[in-house]
Amino acid sequence: MTIEVIAIGGELLCGYTTNTNVVFIGRKLLEEGFIVSRQEVVPDEFDVLTNTFKESLARSSVVIVTGGLGPTLDDITKDVAANLFNSDFKVDRQVAKDLKSRFGNNFPSIDHQSIVPSKAIILKNKVGTAPGFIFENGKSVLILIPGPPMEMNSMMVHDVIPYIKKNCLDLKKTYVKNINFFGLPEMAIDPTLRILKTEYPFIEFGIYPGAGKVSVVMKCTNLKESDADDQLNACLKILEKTFQDNVFMSELETIEEAICDQFIKKRLTLSIAESCTGGFVSSKLVKISGASEYFIGGFTCYSDFYKENFLSVPKSLLEEFGAVSEPCVKQMALNLLEMTASDYSLTISGIAGPSGGTPEKPVGTVFGAIGFKGDVKTFHFKAIGNRSQIIEWTANIMLFELYKVLSQ
Amino acid sequence: MTIEVIAIGGELLCGYTTNTNVVFIGRKLLEEGFIVSRQEVVPDEFDVLTNTFKESLARSSVVIVTGGLGPTLDDITKDVAANLFNSDFKVDRQVAKDLKSRFGNNFPSIDHQSIVPSKAIILKNKVGTAPGFIFENGKSVLILIPGPPMEMNSMMVHDVIPYIKKNCLDLKKTYVKNINFFGLPEMAIDPTLRILKTEYPFIEFGIYPGAGKVSVVMKCTNLKESDADDQLNACLKILEKTFQDNVFMSELETIEEAICDQFIKKRLTLSIAESCTGGFVSSKLVKISGASEYFIGGFTCYSDFYKENFLSVPKSLLEEFGAVSEPCVKQMALNLLEMTASDYSLTISGIAGPSGGTPEKPVGTVFGAIGFKGDVKTFHFKAIGNRSQIIEWTANIMLFELYKVLSQ
Repeated sequence: MTIEVIAIGGELLCGYTTNTNVVFIGRKLLEEGFIVSRQEVVPDEFDVLTNTFKESLARSSVVIVTGGLGPTLDDITKDVAANLFNSDFKVDRQVAKDLKSRFGNNFPSIDHQSIVPSKAIILKNKVGTAPGFIFENGKSVLILIPGPPMEMNSMMVHDVIPYIKKNCLDLKKTYVKNINFFGLPEMAIDPTLRILKTEYPFIEFGIYPGAGKVSVVMKCTNLKESDADDQLNACLKILEKTFQDNVFMSELETIEEAICDQFIKKRLTLSIAESCTGGFVSSKLVKISGASEYFIGGFTCYSDFYKENFLSVPKSLLEEFGAVSEPCVKQMALNLLEMTASDYSLTISGIAGPSGGTPEKPVGTVFGAIGFKGDVKTFHFKAIGNRSQIIEWTANIMLFELYKVLSQ
Repeated sequence: MTIEVIAIGGELLCGYTTNTNVVFIGRKLLEEGFIVSRQEVVPDEFDVLTNTFKESLARSSVVIVTGGLGPTLDDITKDVAANLFNSDFKVDRQVAKDLKSRFGNNFPSIDHQSIVPSKAIILKNKVGTAPGFIFENGKSVLILIPGPPMEMNSMMVHDVIPYIKKNCLDLKKTYVKNINFFGLPEMAIDPTLRILKTEYPFIEFGIYPGAGKVSVVMKCTNLKESDADDQLNACLKILEKTFQDNVFMSELETIEEAICDQFIKKRLTLSIAESCTGGFVSSKLVKISGASEYFIGGFTCYSDFYKENFLSVPKSLLEEFGAVSEPCVKQMALNLLEMTASDYSLTISGIAGPSGGTPEKPVGTVFGAIGFKGDVKTFHFKAIGNRSQIIEWTANIMLFELYKVLSQ
C-alpha cells in the first residue's frame, strides 16, 4: 500500500509560496524506506478538500495532509476531516493547559485550538499552537499536521514517523540510493544507466539535472533488503568508477555539509571572495551549523573599487585583464591567504548577466580560484541559464572543486 | 473551467528536488487572471500517468504537464500522451534541423527528440532540446512542457500563455491582489481580515506566514473586473492604513527588487557587513539584475578576527559588549560608511544557533544597524526557528528596515 501527501493552500497554487513541506516529508519517509506515491496541492474549499481526502483514502493506506489547521479565517482542514469521519468536537483540556503554559493565559487562539474532533488521535504541537490529528477508518489513516515548516517538521519526526512505523505494516518498503555528479550533462551519464538497467532490471533509475549538477536516484522495491542492497551498491560502484572525477558521494546529504565536515576534521580554515555570486557561496556554507569553526569570513567584492581597496588587486591588473579574468581570481586567492591567514581561499569572478557580456566574455563566463599552501588552482567555465541559474551553477561547481581539493 | 498542473518525477516525491516549476507556472497564469485549481506530482510510471492525465482532463479544461520529455531512459511522458490520444509518431524535420543548427549534426539526442506525435501541436524549445506538445480533444487540452526550469520558463512565456489566452476562452477569470507584512505575526492581521470578509463577502482571503513576514492574498472570481478591482483596492487601502509601519506594497514583486529600484532611482550606494546571515542578504540583493549599479560590496565578518582586522571594530568593544551587540553593529555601520564611502550601510550580528546561545543572548538574538549620512539606526529583535529560518527571518526583517529608511 502507498502514502500520499496533500498540501492545502491557495498561496501554493498561485505560486506565492514554494512547497518545501513535501520535500521534508518525502525525505523523512524515504529514510524509513517509504516512498510517497503522489503529492497534491488543493485550495482551502470544503467540497474540494472532502473529495480529495476521499479519493486519496480510497487509493492509499496513509494520507498526510499539511496546512489549514491554524486559527485564521481560511483554516478549515479540521472541520472537513471531522465531517468526513462523522466526528463531533470536544474541548481538550490538555491542549488548553499546554498552550496556556507556553503562551500565557490570554493568548488569543487557545479556545479555538483546544476544540478537537472526538474521534481523532491528538498530536501535540511542541512548537506552535495547532495540534495535529490522526483519523483511522480501519483500512487507511488520515493524518493532519500544521503547515508552518517548523511545526510540521517537529510533528513529522516526533509523531507521524513513529506512528507509521508502528501501525502501517502493510506499506511496501523501498530501498533507495542516490549519487550526484557535478560538471557533467545528463546525456553523459544516461548511456551507463541504460547498460545498468539491462543488468539490474529490478532497479529503477531516475536522472535529474540541476544547475551544474545531475542527481541519479536508484530505487528497488521488489527484492528483499539484502539483495536490494547488494544490487544498489554494485550500481553505485560502477557509477563511481566510471565518473570518478565528477562524483560526489558522501554519508552527508549536501556538498556544503561534506565541506564543513572536512574542514573541521582536518582543523583547517577558509576565506572567500565572491564577485558575481554576491555572497551566495558564503551563505550556503554558513547555513550549515559548524561553519564558525572553519569559516573566517567572506568578501563580496562587487565592484572594482572594492577589489582594489579591500583585496589589494592592482589597478593595472584590473585594467589589463579585467575583473573577470584568471589573473584577477588568482591574485585575490593569494591575497586572501595572506590577509586572513586562512589555510584555503576560494575566489569567484564572472558575468551573471543579463547585461555585461562581450563577444570574448559572454554572459555565463566564470573564473574561479582555490588557494592553499601558497599555491593557487584556477578554473574557467561557462555557466548556463538566467542570472539566478548562473549564480547557482557557479556556486555548485566551485563548491565541488573545493570539496575535491580538500578530499585529496 | 479550470487549469491543473501535473509534475512528473520520482525526485520530487522522494524530496530530492523542490518543485519550483509550479511556482513559476502559478505566477505566470495568475498574471493573466487564471488560477491553478490543483497541482499533482506523480512518478514516471505508464499506468499512473495515463490515469492521472485522464482524470485531470475530465475535471479541467487545461492540463499542463512538466517533465519526462527528455531523451533519458526514464522519460515516458510523450509516449503516454500519444497513447491516450491514439496518435502515431512521425519525424519532424523542422525540429531536427533546428537542433542540428544549435547543437551540431552529431548531437546525441537529435534523432530521439525529432520523433513527435502526429496529432500534437509542436512547441519549439528555444533553450534545450525537447520540444513541447499540445493535444486537443475538443473539450480540453493537454499541454506537455519540459521539466528543466529554463526550458519550461521559456516555453510557458512564448507558447503556453499565448495559446491559453487565444484558445481557452471558457476559463474563469480571477482578480487577485496581494500584500506583505514584515515583523508581524499572522494573528495580528487576522481580526482585520475577518471584519473585511463581512464587508466584502465576494473576496476570499488567504493568510500565509513566512520567516519574519506574512503574506495576504485576496481573490475575487464572481464579480466583473471593475467591481472586483474596486473592492480589492478598498481592502488594500484599509490593510495599508491599519498596519502602515509593517506593510510592504509595491509594483515590484519582492523587497529586493524594490530596494534595487530605490537605490538606482536615487543614485545612492550601499555596503553591507553580515555576521550570522553569512552573506545571505548580499546574495539576495545581487540576484536582482541592476545590483552592480548601487551595491559596492559586502563583508561576511564571520569571526572576531575579521571584525577587528577588516572592519576596524576595536578589540575592547568586542571584549566589553561581545560581537552580538548594539555597539558592535553600530560601529561596523559607521566604519563601513567611511571605508567604502557608500551612502548607506547595513550590518547584522546575531546568534543563528543551534549552539552559541546564552541566557542573556539566546539563539535567535539579532542586532542590526543601518548607517546613512553619518547617522546610525539600530535594531534588536528575536528571530524564531532553526538555523536556516533564523537566517531567513533576519534577512527579511533587515531588508524591510532598509526599504523603509530608503523610502522615507
